[in-house]
Amino acid sequence: MNNTTLLLVTNDDGITAKGINTLKRIAMHYGTVTVVAPDKPQSGMGHAITLNNTLRALPIKSSLGIAEYACSGTPVDCVKLAVAHLLPRKPNLILSGINHGSNSSISVIYSGTMSAAVEGAIEGIPSIGFSLCSHDVDADFDQYEPFIRKVIDHVLSVGLELGSCLNVNIPDVPAAEIKGIKICRQAKAQWIEKFDARTDPMGNPYYWLTGYLHNEDKGTDTDEYALAQHYISVVPVQHDLTAHHLIQKHRDIELA
Amino acid sequence: MNNTTLLLVTNDDGITAKGINTLKRIAMHYGTVTVVAPDKPQSGMGHAITLNNTLRALPIKSSLGIAEYACSGTPVDCVKLAVAHLLPRKPNLILSGINHGSNSSISVIYSGTMSAAVEGAIEGIPSIGFSLCSHDVDADFDQYEPFIRKVIDHVLSVGLELGSCLNVNIPDVPAAEIKGIKICRQAKAQWIEKFDARTDPMGNPYYWLTGYLHNEDKGTDTDEYALAQHYISVVPVQHDLTAHHLIQKHRDIELA
Repeated sequence: MNNTTLLLVTNDDGITAKGINTLKRIAMHYGTVTVVAPDKPQSGMGHAITLNNTLRALPIKSSLGIAEYACSGTPVDCVKLAVAHLLPRKPNLILSGINHGSNSSISVIYSGTMSAAVEGAIEGIPSIGFSLCSHDVDADFDQYEPFIRKVIDHVLSVGLELGSCLNVNIPDVPAAEIKGIKICRQAKAQWIEKFDARTDPMGNPYYWLTGYLHNEDKGTDTDEYALAQHYISVVPVQHDLTAHHLIQKHRDIELA
Repeated sequence: MNNTTLLLVTNDDGITAKGINTLKRIAMHYGTVTVVAPDKPQSGMGHAITLNNTLRALPIKSSLGIAEYACSGTPVDCVKLAVAHLLPRKPNLILSGINHGSNSSISVIYSGTMSAAVEGAIEGIPSIGFSLCSHDVDADFDQYEPFIRKVIDHVLSVGLELGSCLNVNIPDVPAAEIKGIKICRQAKAQWIEKFDARTDPMGNPYYWLTGYLHNEDKGTDTDEYALAQHYISVVPVQHDLTAHHLIQKHRDIELA
């Protein structure tokens, strides 16, 4: 690859997170890299955008000698601002992550990491989101570089259908124990919420969102299954939310 | 309908917005209503949830004599907190809106109003999001009540497939000029961003996100087409982001 390839790197854990450093370094093998990432953690921001407030994008000194901006907005804001304003042209590839924690199954819809990739797809730019299924603060992201490069090489070689992106999750096992890469569908699972209700020093109630992922999907073609078998899961992702198969079912509404 | 039907009403414009008042009043025809809505505008919050902060849900005095809570979180937080903690049981129906502004086409993915409905669908609860394609501060939401009730009646009669919800957009014309209701797919359109770059009094740059919806989709079965013809558009919405048709295309990645 030469310097005519322009890559945008972003994430949702914030520009100082450990995972984005691995991804920046890997991205530099493929061309010219610009980083536009949140200036603070933005986990769980989904496809949020900043409508009622201003945005900042502060150029920061990069230890890698590349252009880096700390953005006050969400991951999707980062992509929009980069593509529409900060970059000289549309990037050839957007890499988001590496997220510190899983974004498999239904988590794709809550994930800022994946929403950045989906936004890239909406804007017609090949995009990949990467997540490591570990919350260990000392997690070693660098060890997965060969797998990450395989996915990037595949996308640069085969391409992505317009409007689609990839959701890549890495199981929480040492790289040497990873069995390979599996192309999957997202498992039909959901988060079961449990709110931890507490009382503040003034006697007023407040809540922490907690919960666990409940997966009743026994399919062997899902991301959850692949991860449990120590495979890296790759789910092709699209953004059309229309339930096309239900249009006929609701046709009667027109006669209501 | 009797009082054994439990309805949750929410929105993204905030609990004091004009549109939610119409929806609360309509909801009361169908059963027992609880309102859990953001305590401030949350437009464009997409499927964001609050992970790194606490949540509040302040009971407020309701002029309608129903249970109402002003929640510090996003629309999806409101649904999660209501279903998992505030309500005595799973509601029979979630109504979100009426949003002040369109949520047709690609806007469904950025919309807090629709993300609340999608969250309801994820949790297995029939859910409908309503939006009026007008930003007029004096917009008269009440005039559309007969149409809104037709959609609710339809859902209560026919039901919604598990995991799906409805995205209802009302064109910006007087109720008397609405030609009917059309079941549609979301148009393949996208927002073209233009960032309004300004300089603050300290000499530092900041940005406002602006833009316009660019629709190259000429289909006559889309929500944009129906709205332009003065029909109310109803799009059945699902939340599986897997691009199932692309799984085979990317199978080679397994051999990479």
